[in-house]
Amino acid sequence: MKRSEAVAEAAISLLAERGMRGLTHRAVDEAAGLPPGSTSNVARTRAALLELTLSRLTELEARVFAGAGADGPPPGADLIELLAGMLTAQLRDRRRTLARYELALEATRRPELRVIYDRAGRRFRDPAVALLAAAGSGDPVRHGRQLVAFAEGVMFDAIAGAGAEPSPEDLRAGIRELLTGMLGRDPGAGGGPSW
Amino acid sequence: MKRSEAVAEAAISLLAERGMRGLTHRAVDEAAGLPPGSTSNVARTRAALLELTLSRLTELEARVFAGAGADGPPPGADLIELLAGMLTAQLRDRRRTLARYELALEATRRPELRVIYDRAGRRFRDPAVALLAAAGSGDPVRHGRQLVAFAEGVMFDAIAGAGAEPSPEDLRAGIRELLTGMLGRDPGAGGGPSW
Repeated sequence: MKRSEAVAEAAISLLAERGMRGLTHRAVDEAAGLPPGSTSNVARTRAALLELTLSRLTELEARVFAGAGADGPPPGADLIELLAGMLTAQLRDRRRTLARYELALEATRRPELRVIYDRAGRRFRDPAVALLAAAGSGDPVRHGRQLVAFAEGVMFDAIAGAGAEPSPEDLRAGIRELLTGMLGRDPGAGGGPSW
Repeated sequence: MKRSEAVAEAAISLLAERGMRGLTHRAVDEAAGLPPGSTSNVARTRAALLELTLSRLTELEARVFAGAGADGPPPGADLIELLAGMLTAQLRDRRRTLARYELALEATRRPELRVIYDRAGRRFRDPAVALLAAAGSGDPVRHGRQLVAFAEGVMFDAIAGAGAEPSPEDLRAGIRELLTGMLGRDPGAGGGPSW
């Protein structure tokens, strides 16, 4: 692992465990097991450290999503299973998701972070729009946004909110209902586009 | 306004503007225009200050929700309009919602804060379940949770995430689709329970 990756990984863990207040250059040095000053060498300012951390985080999330089929579902893939699989993968990594929420809130106060966050957001939004269009949505842009918001809400509620993590069955049922309402038909019942 | 309310109000603003790192007893004194030491007199520890702030916040949100009809919709009220009105009221108060997100993340690290957050969460979850049951849901507990998660996701996306705030029309369309998928009928099309 490159030193900048080790720094970013330690920063992600610190954000999840201790929040923004717990993220300092010195704490990252310690958490990464690096000599004092290492983090400063990689990212001199706090802004640079936050940007490095968010960039690493979005890279990790993109990999999880690609693995779950976001870059084009395999032919014949079931849309509900596909989406449930992605959401389950996200829910599984509490550390990464908590760190992302910390950075999302910080991005409301740091325009340079906002740019990175929003660019990363498009990497999930654009495939969501494409999925909905392929499934026959009459309003794929709005529906794609709605699907992303739904997924975000389920995650936030389970990870930081007052809700329990939904069971895989509940997750699938919820996704099915959302899609049925948007598409005007049950996407799991056949009769739609082949994938 | 009581002194404890002034302290909590200033803390909410600081959380929204500067995040957890910006919340200190001294900063609250200054933001509230109170003599040094006032915040410490009201809430000696950081934990006490966070609890006071979250309690005030949940009180404010409960008032907004009660005003929007969560305590029992007026007879004949339209479910979609009712929910869109609540969500719009929440979206309008960015300050309060950002502060709540900061406290939700902090609650993942502070069990005493978690208790308050979750208790407040039930104040919104229980009416959501009741609304869905009254609308004829066959699974009101799961559906109520799903509705709250959807609302949370739309808010998070618009306020802290990469999404734009949905227009009132998009908001209503999204709520209608979610409810249609859950209830198996369009709740805006008549034919359901009278309320």
